[in-house]
Amino acid sequence: MVTRQEVADRAGVSVAVVSYVLNGRKIVKEETKRRVQEAIRELGYRPNQTARSLKTKKSQQIAVLIHYIGNPFEAGLLLHIEATAKQHGYFVFVQTYDPNREEELRGLLMGRVDGVLLLGPCFSRETLEYFNSLEIPIVSVMQPSTWGERNNVPYVDIAWLPMMRNLISHLRQQGHERIAFMSEGGQNLHYAVRYHAFCEVMRLEGLHTDAAVSRYLNGSGRFEQAKMVLGRLLEGEEGVLTDFTAIVCANDLMAAGCLAACHERGIRVPHDMAIAGCENILMSSQLSPPLTVIDYPRQLAGEAAMNMLLDRMNGITAEPILLSGNLIVRGSTRSNE
Amino acid sequence: MVTRQEVADRAGVSVAVVSYVLNGRKIVKEETKRRVQEAIRELGYRPNQTARSLKTKKSQQIAVLIHYIGNPFEAGLLLHIEATAKQHGYFVFVQTYDPNREEELRGLLMGRVDGVLLLGPCFSRETLEYFNSLEIPIVSVMQPSTWGERNNVPYVDIAWLPMMRNLISHLRQQGHERIAFMSEGGQNLHYAVRYHAFCEVMRLEGLHTDAAVSRYLNGSGRFEQAKMVLGRLLEGEEGVLTDFTAIVCANDLMAAGCLAACHERGIRVPHDMAIAGCENILMSSQLSPPLTVIDYPRQLAGEAAMNMLLDRMNGITAEPILLSGNLIVRGSTRSNE
Repeated sequence: MVTRQEVADRAGVSVAVVSYVLNGRKIVKEETKRRVQEAIRELGYRPNQTARSLKTKKSQQIAVLIHYIGNPFEAGLLLHIEATAKQHGYFVFVQTYDPNREEELRGLLMGRVDGVLLLGPCFSRETLEYFNSLEIPIVSVMQPSTWGERNNVPYVDIAWLPMMRNLISHLRQQGHERIAFMSEGGQNLHYAVRYHAFCEVMRLEGLHTDAAVSRYLNGSGRFEQAKMVLGRLLEGEEGVLTDFTAIVCANDLMAAGCLAACHERGIRVPHDMAIAGCENILMSSQLSPPLTVIDYPRQLAGEAAMNMLLDRMNGITAEPILLSGNLIVRGSTRSNE
Repeated sequence: MVTRQEVADRAGVSVAVVSYVLNGRKIVKEETKRRVQEAIRELGYRPNQTARSLKTKKSQQIAVLIHYIGNPFEAGLLLHIEATAKQHGYFVFVQTYDPNREEELRGLLMGRVDGVLLLGPCFSRETLEYFNSLEIPIVSVMQPSTWGERNNVPYVDIAWLPMMRNLISHLRQQGHERIAFMSEGGQNLHYAVRYHAFCEVMRLEGLHTDAAVSRYLNGSGRFEQAKMVLGRLLEGEEGVLTDFTAIVCANDLMAAGCLAACHERGIRVPHDMAIAGCENILMSSQLSPPLTVIDYPRQLAGEAAMNMLLDRMNGITAEPILLSGNLIVRGSTRSNE
């Protein structure tokens, strides 16, 4: 079996530099990186085989850590992640991520997985470094907002800026200028990426985003909470000005909750209030009126993320992938439907 | 630490008999079983501690094997299973069950889990015996139809017979006599339990179940498949007589698919066709008309199953639990709504 030392010798670098390249650290010069990757290809070096031989057997398992399994969107992504993993002979197991149990989780995953896929949650820097030192690659579907290049965790997400531009532009065509956004309390979550894109487009369009309304519109990512929060706001209980005529929700469950809150109060959708979601789960297409959504390509994203992780497990570096979404206009924003 | 030998000595039986009792085998006389359980209590014997000490550390992990993670019903059960496990310091990981990979799965779970919870799928007899020999208890939520007392796998489910009686009786009050059932192709699945209860109640009510229709109405447990299958039938493409005026679906996703198929063809629900589901997922309450469903108490079932598994892990035998469901009548079957 080809060793890391042999790769280092061939490339004329130290073993540490080979590790840096394999782990995608940016501190290595492009020219050096190229030489190391060439040596890896020429020698047919497989980093995981080494790691596995130390463990005496392959784990053939991939851990998927999920933010909230109660959202059909995440479950849908999972189906495609699983299918892709299976094609390559891997077992996928899913755990709900709990930031308070990260240390325990590290112990549980150690030696048991060949890779980790994050579906929403964001590891602490300490945990990222821990897996890095074990050469267990991490890939994220849906970029958590506190991540950037700085953590070197590659991700697959959709390009939110152009999608939000399409959505807000559509809402403007329907006569809306005062548009609210419903998100989730946490700031280090993938929904915050969507909110930031929304705010950026609003700014570019010269429209005002009411920070007080945004702060209040915390739907916790759930149907019931969204329904309750918007309901209270519409009834003026909170002393927050509700002069918006359209609401964009970071996920579809919350958009469905907003629709239910409007129905309960006789607020006509889309005539009195336009509502849109950001995922396109099945339910959205079946509501009355059906919801306008940004269609998140679940299959593409699940497959791309799993393939990225398999690449990383084979020592191939990966860059973030931004997929195109698709705006699906339905009755919840278009009054002539 | 108390050993199994000490329990055997105290109870005046062999170590093998202690194992039989711990594993819930029926071959042990009631009186012997009572003596062994008394000895276990008196000595404070904890079977899993032994198993764990052999593994040098506790796994503190429970595997949940799921039939189809794309159904929000199963995901909802999972949330409650996880919450209960967490209260007891356990990690839950979820895997989609694939009957073709059962042997691999055994290898992956061996030494890694303290218990297995089945959410729909059914292990082969060989695998059941394998986990039995490892003293890894198995509990099922939703009884798979090919199981009975014979496998000694305790389960939590709802009592389908009284629930189906309530549902069919309601449909009769609405004037329906020709009632179809949509299920899933596989015969060893939990949906078959629901179908059998349906057939039994139809028989008791003196109503005819059309086997040809039932065979054809295979919605695969999914929305799209259900919509397609019912759609084709309604268009007379299949040469199957569609003289039914009501359809009961083994899960809500299929019921939603049937509703969509009717909407597309201008078939009025409930006037021309009544539709009911068996789970009560969120979507069902938000459709137009909202779906009449048997409400499966997810929280109770998830908690009860997890507690049953924890008991089994502590050597306490468990009997099947049948919970009460609740019929929720909504617009999809009640014409005056």
